[in-house]
Amino acid sequence: MAIGEFAFIAKHLRPLAAGVPGALGLQDDAALLDPPPGAELVLTKDAMVAGVHFLADDPPAQIAQKLLRVNLSDLAAMGAAPLGYLLALARAKETSEAWLAEFCRGLAADQAEFGIGLLGGDTVSTPGPLTLSLTAIGAVPKGEALRRSTARPGDDIWISGTIGDGALGLKVLRGRLAGLPAAHRDALVERYRLPQPRVACGAGLVGIAYAAMDISDGLVADLGHIADVSGVAAVVEAASVPLSTAAAAALAIDPQMRDAVLGGGDDYELLFTAPPDAAPSIAALAAGLGLPLTAIGRIEAGRGVRVVDAAGAEIALARAGYTHG
Amino acid sequence: MAIGEFAFIAKHLRPLAAGVPGALGLQDDAALLDPPPGAELVLTKDAMVAGVHFLADDPPAQIAQKLLRVNLSDLAAMGAAPLGYLLALARAKETSEAWLAEFCRGLAADQAEFGIGLLGGDTVSTPGPLTLSLTAIGAVPKGEALRRSTARPGDDIWISGTIGDGALGLKVLRGRLAGLPAAHRDALVERYRLPQPRVACGAGLVGIAYAAMDISDGLVADLGHIADVSGVAAVVEAASVPLSTAAAAALAIDPQMRDAVLGGGDDYELLFTAPPDAAPSIAALAAGLGLPLTAIGRIEAGRGVRVVDAAGAEIALARAGYTHG
Repeated sequence: MAIGEFAFIAKHLRPLAAGVPGALGLQDDAALLDPPPGAELVLTKDAMVAGVHFLADDPPAQIAQKLLRVNLSDLAAMGAAPLGYLLALARAKETSEAWLAEFCRGLAADQAEFGIGLLGGDTVSTPGPLTLSLTAIGAVPKGEALRRSTARPGDDIWISGTIGDGALGLKVLRGRLAGLPAAHRDALVERYRLPQPRVACGAGLVGIAYAAMDISDGLVADLGHIADVSGVAAVVEAASVPLSTAAAAALAIDPQMRDAVLGGGDDYELLFTAPPDAAPSIAALAAGLGLPLTAIGRIEAGRGVRVVDAAGAEIALARAGYTHG
Repeated sequence: MAIGEFAFIAKHLRPLAAGVPGALGLQDDAALLDPPPGAELVLTKDAMVAGVHFLADDPPAQIAQKLLRVNLSDLAAMGAAPLGYLLALARAKETSEAWLAEFCRGLAADQAEFGIGLLGGDTVSTPGPLTLSLTAIGAVPKGEALRRSTARPGDDIWISGTIGDGALGLKVLRGRLAGLPAAHRDALVERYRLPQPRVACGAGLVGIAYAAMDISDGLVADLGHIADVSGVAAVVEAASVPLSTAAAAALAIDPQMRDAVLGGGDDYELLFTAPPDAAPSIAALAAGLGLPLTAIGRIEAGRGVRVVDAAGAEIALARAGYTHG
């Protein structure tokens, strides 16, 4: 191993905790966190394994940012503002100090981007692949957290940003969509590698949205989660689903990519429901954020998710989502 | 793989979150935690890898309990009462459902023992060894957390329980100390496999102790951490260090085991300092807990840790601790 545990902590991790009051310089048994007045805390934890959740030759800084951002996306889905995070890092034999330095550079960049710091964690060695786990902590006004289980018949279904870029980016990395212009291919790969957690959007939806979650398993699968736990049905109008320029170009080349768009994961956009009279507030939020928020369907009584075309006829989709990881 | 991710969560993990208000049935993007009034939160995260931090044929329930307890010990070291935990579990190809069921049975037992519940987490697959990460959250009265950096010259050094059992238990597992009676060998192995986090003791020391930490790297190494970050020296009287009956018998058979006792890890007792006039309060706490609390030395001006014999002469020890993991 290129660098010992204590030296790695001192050289690469401690700077990430500098100026973070409760991190105590990573020198104590645990971290302290003073909860904001009137706040409820929101806690989430995701793990990533080399060769399973990222590719071995992905840029280390982007791996760090993806790990942090998928957790921030979970906080955003509940309307929480991020406060800090803890990191567990199991280093493989082949993990070099240069790799670790780049990984920590990615964390530092996103700490600045999202205004958070490293609170604590653990570093160990593993004879297996590099394995990462991150716990993110956020705060939401008490009793106001957005939930999955609160969608109601009559709600509109909304989505932030655009859908399908993450899944199409993974296809590009696997050699598909070779006919797409390079700029579009790069844009899709960037979306796959570097999700944009909708932190400000999530916080802005507190008091407006009824139900919310982030899209990690795919639009249809995740809408299915909301429908299941809320005990309702969801109908999506395929033509309303917002696409990026790159995704629209991919669909123009290969219409079969529609299944990847509607069923693929890794978008990390927010999926939420709201009563029709919330539309003006949502439009105002979208304008304030500079982020498209698009109504794509409606919640009804019943069960399950249907995707329909412009004429209202159901579209059959290949099953996707649900089982990765 | 014997059981899919969603089925594993539903069958084995969801029961661990039953009745935990903020866990939301493990059906949401994150967990909620309502901080107790006037509390500061304490957060800690430890990772364990099969073949590195536990032996492949250790009982799964004890692996679960050790993972949870080393984290609870970190909370105890800061004086915090545990509130809940998140778990990340990377399952190896060979991890059977029976193993997972036993692992979760261990968690359930300790949830009852320590009055906490599963708040959330993540389960993934790994091509490498089974890898675990646990984040524990506790609460301590605001501004009252025990720290490592607050030892002062003139403080007495105290220790809870007995020292060396964990390190000697590991030696027994590796085939050493064969001359020891079976009951003693079993007692030492039990201490290695199943630490007793001093949760009530830690909470009881708030307002009494000046500095505290838990012993995971070994008495001398961990006292070194306190001395380093407090900017003081520590002197330990070897004869005062409290031993269990089993550890005393081991030392009688093999006096060279003293280095393992003073330098070995995995005791998870609390090491703390307090001014001499706190002795009556500490004695009262010990009586109330039914747990020995023993003064083993003193904090002085200077740097470093010295271990001395009854005549005050320094004892040289083999270097230990500091680099595992």
